Amino acid sequence: MACEGGNEPLLTEQHEAQEPKPQDNCMVSSNSKKLRRCRSAPMVEPIIQESNLNRFLERPKSIFDQFNPQFKRVGTYLFIYLGISTVCFYLVRDQISGQKTNGVLDSIYFCIVTMTTVGYGDLIPDSTATKLLACAFVFSGMVLVGFFLSRAADCLVENQEVLLIKAMHLRREANSMETLKEVETNRVRYRCIIFSILMVILIASGTVFLTTVEKMEIVDAFYCVCSTITTLGYGDKSFSTPAGRIFAIFWILTSTICLAQLLFAFAELYTESRQRSLVKWVLTRKTTAADLEAADLDDDGVVGAAEFCIYKLKEMGKINQEDISLIMAQFNSLDVDDSGTLSPSDIYLAQSTR
Amino acid sequence: MACEGGNEPLLTEQHEAQEPKPQDNCMVSSNSKKLRRCRSAPMVEPIIQESNLNRFLERPKSIFDQFNPQFKRVGTYLFIYLGISTVCFYLVRDQISGQKTNGVLDSIYFCIVTMTTVGYGDLIPDSTATKLLACAFVFSGMVLVGFFLSRAADCLVENQEVLLIKAMHLRREANSMETLKEVETNRVRYRCIIFSILMVILIASGTVFLTTVEKMEIVDAFYCVCSTITTLGYGDKSFSTPAGRIFAIFWILTSTICLAQLLFAFAELYTESRQRSLVKWVLTRKTTAADLEAADLDDDGVVGAAEFCIYKLKEMGKINQEDISLIMAQFNSLDVDDSGTLSPSDIYLAQSTR
Repeated sequence: MACEGGNEPLLTEQHEAQEPKPQDNCMVSSNSKKLRRCRSAPMVEPIIQESNLNRFLERPKSIFDQFNPQFKRVGTYLFIYLGISTVCFYLVRDQISGQKTNGVLDSIYFCIVTMTTVGYGDLIPDSTATKLLACAFVFSGMVLVGFFLSRAADCLVENQEVLLIKAMHLRREANSMETLKEVETNRVRYRCIIFSILMVILIASGTVFLTTVEKMEIVDAFYCVCSTITTLGYGDKSFSTPAGRIFAIFWILTSTICLAQLLFAFAELYTESRQRSLVKWVLTRKTTAADLEAADLDDDGVVGAAEFCIYKLKEMGKINQEDISLIMAQFNSLDVDDSGTLSPSDIYLAQSTR
Repeated sequence: MACEGGNEPLLTEQHEAQEPKPQDNCMVSSNSKKLRRCRSAPMVEPIIQESNLNRFLERPKSIFDQFNPQFKRVGTYLFIYLGISTVCFYLVRDQISGQKTNGVLDSIYFCIVTMTTVGYGDLIPDSTATKLLACAFVFSGMVLVGFFLSRAADCLVENQEVLLIKAMHLRREANSMETLKEVETNRVRYRCIIFSILMVILIASGTVFLTTVEKMEIVDAFYCVCSTITTLGYGDKSFSTPAGRIFAIFWILTSTICLAQLLFAFAELYTESRQRSLVKWVLTRKTTAADLEAADLDDDGVVGAAEFCIYKLKEMGKINQEDISLIMAQFNSLDVDDSGTLSPSDIYLAQSTR
């Protein structure tokens, strides 16, 4: 669940532009000679190589530049949603009963409590129209929170990860390459750490705020915090002062999204560890003659590096036959002389006759 | 987010056992001769081929057999969770205030309302101990609902998809292959349809129940249903009769999970359509001489089918350099004569000396 705001084709084209670098992203480890020269295909995930180090360390800025349009879009959606719902609820404010403070403030607060599905019930729609309005806004709010705001949170934390990488890099300068590689492979773990820290800060700030401004007991404050961040919202304890509701508008939105993202990151960690154990099994199991026969795509009796890669990638479940069939269809249309290989003359002939 | 209950290594081994079928899962389309013989690597996703048709159509049973242990596990977790929390809340039932019916029933109902984060507030913890207990159970309940129950729902719907496939297959018997292929590629779309139908049934049943048993107005009933399935739970309308609470125990759990899964399926549909447009772009863009040079892993001046596949898969973002590096390390350790290809003698030498 990375930020994918229209960046794929762009990204690949960018990488292509940087391509003709010798020895960049080399496929081969030290002991092979035959497979020495292999600039990589365009890639979505950046590779950490000594030559890419500087580019990688400058990522925070470029990421922000890259996703700035997305933040703007998310911000616009949120602004439009809150604008429309605030106006709607403000117009029907007489048909909402409960603990009231300021008209506009209550409308925004009611929107936030509804869209995050906290639903304290300290403000309750009291007419048919208001009830149906609340139903409409809770569904659209869920979609907004689920799709857009959590993606924005994702992107923000990605920047934090890069800062973390930078910090670690500065501390262990001698061994920077390894540190970076370690961080890259432990990305999900770092995400868990960052969201956990954020969550502790949000829980602490919420509890302190509720005890000082809303004058709650410490247990009640903590109970209200837990009841809010999980979107449980029993409603016996909620934000009832104007200052409390202003704080709540920002705090509820941040903390509910943060907890959801934290749980998602833990789920990812679990999936990743399962995936890693599968990869480990695929790479350490004994290779048999039957494997070689199955991997030998061009039927020449031996298995080349690329054939072996495809065989193992399929075994890992990263790719499937459909992916390969689609690509093979293109390969066959380009291979005009049916030689089983593509040469520059093949692609020239194939693409000029189109 | 498929059901992956410890099945990966098992699954691949199963596929391996079925492997030596000629022409099964063939990589090549009609017009190439060179690449004719290519039994596939073990695969996680099954391929629909005429020869696999019967196996595929018999999947419902086999899937159920396969995931029965997982259902049992999920059921056990749910039973343990509900058991412990019911006992806990029953013991402190005097410290819970609100609309009460039967002691045990209220305890289970309170558990369900808490674990799904609906949190009506019709029953409210009224002492420090009960409040902290509710905090503990809402977090553990969220994890249970998020990780285990939604995965179980996923598996159940997978069976429904196969039944849908079967139904369509019976109707259009002549063209069964195409129907099956269409269903396979539209899996996410069918998931959306099934969850939408389920959601409509759940909303209708909830509304009818609330109007007849809880004697609500139709608008109030619909409002209560919406407020529940989104886990909003303002609490002004809730289940207050014993019969209502028995219904609620099953209905709340099902409908909240179903709506979450529906939204997830829509998100998947969106991601998949983006992924497809990227794949389309990768497969239709003009191939240049620079592409060929970059794809030529073994540096022999021409690009083989497998090399072309890897190049395009990287461009699609399905695999990355790290995946390939790991596999290449194994390849190099097996390629004892440094020939750049694996032969049966290579793997015999490499693995017997270990």
